[in-house]
Amino acid sequence: MIVDKLAIVGTGLIGGSFALALKQAGAVREVLGVGRSPARLTVARELGLIDHAVDWAQAGQADCILLALPVGETAAALQQLAPHLKVGAIVTDAGSTKLKVVEAARAALGARFADFVPGHPIAGSEQSGPGAARADLYRGKRVVLTPQADTRADAVATVRALWETAGAQVETLDAAQHDRIFAAVSHLPHLAAFALVDDLAQRADADTFFRFAASGFRDFTRIAGSSPEMWRDIALANREAVLTELDAYLAALQMLRQAVDAEDADALLKMFSRARNARENWIVTQDS
Amino acid sequence: MIVDKLAIVGTGLIGGSFALALKQAGAVREVLGVGRSPARLTVARELGLIDHAVDWAQAGQADCILLALPVGETAAALQQLAPHLKVGAIVTDAGSTKLKVVEAARAALGARFADFVPGHPIAGSEQSGPGAARADLYRGKRVVLTPQADTRADAVATVRALWETAGAQVETLDAAQHDRIFAAVSHLPHLAAFALVDDLAQRADADTFFRFAASGFRDFTRIAGSSPEMWRDIALANREAVLTELDAYLAALQMLRQAVDAEDADALLKMFSRARNARENWIVTQDS
Repeated sequence: MIVDKLAIVGTGLIGGSFALALKQAGAVREVLGVGRSPARLTVARELGLIDHAVDWAQAGQADCILLALPVGETAAALQQLAPHLKVGAIVTDAGSTKLKVVEAARAALGARFADFVPGHPIAGSEQSGPGAARADLYRGKRVVLTPQADTRADAVATVRALWETAGAQVETLDAAQHDRIFAAVSHLPHLAAFALVDDLAQRADADTFFRFAASGFRDFTRIAGSSPEMWRDIALANREAVLTELDAYLAALQMLRQAVDAEDADALLKMFSRARNARENWIVTQDS
Repeated sequence: MIVDKLAIVGTGLIGGSFALALKQAGAVREVLGVGRSPARLTVARELGLIDHAVDWAQAGQADCILLALPVGETAAALQQLAPHLKVGAIVTDAGSTKLKVVEAARAALGARFADFVPGHPIAGSEQSGPGAARADLYRGKRVVLTPQADTRADAVATVRALWETAGAQVETLDAAQHDRIFAAVSHLPHLAAFALVDDLAQRADADTFFRFAASGFRDFTRIAGSSPEMWRDIALANREAVLTELDAYLAALQMLRQAVDAEDADALLKMFSRARNARENWIVTQDS
């Protein structure tokens, strides 16, 4: 047993899978769930993700509270939760961006900010909701924690132990570095995929184009099937790093455009070869 | 039996799979193979993709000759083949772009251009070479033919029958329209994936970025694992349409950048929702 009572705010894929994994491992005794939708809370209870649906006051009495919400909703949830936090309670989150969440937590929690452990599990699925939760979602996946200078070390240790029990590999990063890295390897690819599909979709003869799209297009655009609300929130919460990455990408595409325009076969071959080699080297590390 | 002797120029995935499918279906009696690498031709024969390795003169005596080569090598192959073409022989190709191939065929074949049927099977794999060939590669896949006003109708009918026998669904398109469509749904996504990976790969701290890349990145960049030589050829062979698509994509990314910069949540949500809906509608047609 790592904590007695765990509360999850948001009983979907991310929160539900965390609860399931910890319950199965015997790392928590009781799981409380907070959410806006009574129907969804009922499903979460029936599926065994949570033991009880509770209000903010009861959630504040848990030993550890995970906010598993779109980043746009985290600030409001922290404000709701703050007045009810019992002494020693740890708060953590699962948001895809960290600087804005840290800022919101500092504002909402005041002196209790030391008990907040910013986190980001690098796991997900195209499915969402309580029905998609699985005890093994985090097995072998990375979780990044971005503790601040004034974060309690034992709160970090507890959150780390919970994620490790759920099967994850935990790393710590500076929050700003986290946001820069994920702007590049996650946020930009999502925006690039949305932009490409939308550019086609808006054409008068869109159907003709889609009719000939094949497997390369399907994989390239898979992430354009993700939640528009979630990605709107992420783009805005990580605005500065996303703009930096968009500018770098626009510059890379302009260079490519110049090489095509100038029929510079060598430049194209160099660019494509570097990209393929880098990707192959990366894939090898993924398989290990 | 649709043709007696089939010759394939290039005995890799594309040519080899075509030959295997037709041999198995009894649509051809004998398959001849042309290639620069004796070792590869031996493998192709041992795997049963071809019956004999032949030279250009012998290949010209086949009833149908398929050029299954990178588009950059098609013009030279047509020039080699032209003097040896027997009366009535049909020539076809499997190149990813069509206008340049048509132009090269017109120049190389002269009066025999009427016997050339430009084609493009929409099938492939990350694997290549004779060992990757499979009789079912084309089953359920699209093949686009782009016959010209002066292409012999019975040559088109024969090539159509061969592809249909291999399990494909054959459509005809205007060559320019073909090139515009594939610039958008295939060539641009490949270039966009190469550019994104290369932009990361060239950074001093590239390893830190790649270390946190996950499944979304893997799928988005899968096509950046494709052959650099093949994609250099395609980008140059379809230069004008590729430039048009690159410009449209740059404009779409600039609009997205402006929405992020202005924190225009509604514009982002609209863009992402349109993209997701369009992709979901497309995926439904793919499954049927």
